[in-house]
Amino acid sequence: MKKIVLVGSGNVATHLGISLKEKGNNILQVISKNKKNAKTLADRLSCNYSNNLNNLREADLIIVSVSDYAISEVMNQIPEIPVVHTSGSVDLDVCSNLHSGVFYPLQTFNKNIYINLSEVPICIEANNAEFEKELVILAKSISNNIVLMNSNERKKIHIAAIFACNFSNHMYSISDEILSKLNIDFKLLLPLINQTVKKLNSNKAIDVQTGPAKRGDLEIINKHINLISDETIKELYQKISESIIKHHE
Amino acid sequence: MKKIVLVGSGNVATHLGISLKEKGNNILQVISKNKKNAKTLADRLSCNYSNNLNNLREADLIIVSVSDYAISEVMNQIPEIPVVHTSGSVDLDVCSNLHSGVFYPLQTFNKNIYINLSEVPICIEANNAEFEKELVILAKSISNNIVLMNSNERKKIHIAAIFACNFSNHMYSISDEILSKLNIDFKLLLPLINQTVKKLNSNKAIDVQTGPAKRGDLEIINKHINLISDETIKELYQKISESIIKHHE
Repeated sequence: MKKIVLVGSGNVATHLGISLKEKGNNILQVISKNKKNAKTLADRLSCNYSNNLNNLREADLIIVSVSDYAISEVMNQIPEIPVVHTSGSVDLDVCSNLHSGVFYPLQTFNKNIYINLSEVPICIEANNAEFEKELVILAKSISNNIVLMNSNERKKIHIAAIFACNFSNHMYSISDEILSKLNIDFKLLLPLINQTVKKLNSNKAIDVQTGPAKRGDLEIINKHINLISDETIKELYQKISESIIKHHE
Repeated sequence: MKKIVLVGSGNVATHLGISLKEKGNNILQVISKNKKNAKTLADRLSCNYSNNLNNLREADLIIVSVSDYAISEVMNQIPEIPVVHTSGSVDLDVCSNLHSGVFYPLQTFNKNIYINLSEVPICIEANNAEFEKELVILAKSISNNIVLMNSNERKKIHIAAIFACNFSNHMYSISDEILSKLNIDFKLLLPLINQTVKKLNSNKAIDVQTGPAKRGDLEIINKHINLISDETIKELYQKISESIIKHHE
């Protein structure tokens, strides 16, 4: 069985490590500059840990799951061992090892929220066919949804994912902020939110758009803009409404 | 049993009519200036229809489900019969009948997508306690989730709902637009979207925010902004990222 070293101890490293281990893969070591986090994850994976890449154990694969801006620096310290990073936004060629790849799980991770990766798309890229095949086998051990894509596609998908996940979550956040000022529980909106998402199973989002902006109802839009006191939220209401109007002209 | 007349034949009128009828309420007539839509809905409800308010039948309750800007005009033509409108944004006092109220289902409706209203919050307001009680009884026939609120609260909730539903759906729409240029199926993002929403069951949205803006990663944000060619989408990426950064300072 392949011996895997995880470099990083953040959200992605944690969830990948746990899933890989659960599915019987051999996680040998966690290396993270944050020693406490490294220990926490290593304890969960029952493996060795270190805060120094010089202590890297002999492995078959290194998975680098660190902040985007730190990937290049880490890659420069990695010996000639097959290596992948897990970022949506960083090119394959950040690493020049003989076997270099990308292993990008298209999901939103929070350390303390368990997630089953079996439906999560794992986006794979490699600098040679043989390594690509090995990465696909590894990915298949944790997910049924494997997608091969190049760095340009992955970057665009990452942007699409930011709109679909990070930005929609921010919309929920603003909702919650508005409701909490009235002491109204945000959970009141959950049936609405669930229905909005359920429609996507069999419809294109643009075809099921509803609301004042979709109807071009400028009177309501202006009323709402006047009712919002926070300048940042006011501007977002205006800009997003304008974009919806433009998309439905 | 109360005889109900529906004024309007759009998304809300259609879903309310169908749910009320399903739960055994007596829908007597549909009136809509669009005769074809009036007939379509009346056929689904097995009732009379007209395109003229002068033909209004003798009823116990009139539900006015028309565009916000048309509510006032319609209300002026309604005789002294108990009446409600179904809008989130229009004040109770748009109508001066003896029994006036609001019956606002907090949901996103598309005519051809069936929806079970049993979990959908019905927001009730009335100009007297007796009528409020009657509206609550009617609302309970179609939903388990009844909320009493005044016009000010309802307007703010409507704005919160626009962020949580209409604006998040527009985020999905933009995602789809980005992916379709790469011939990638939007369904690839569904596990991510479902997880983003699932987290709301037991977390506050602001506490589970992820992504480059949450991390204050200006390098990635600028990279993405340079990669987006559409000016409207580029500006939204920037403005929403700025708002996330501000909310997490």
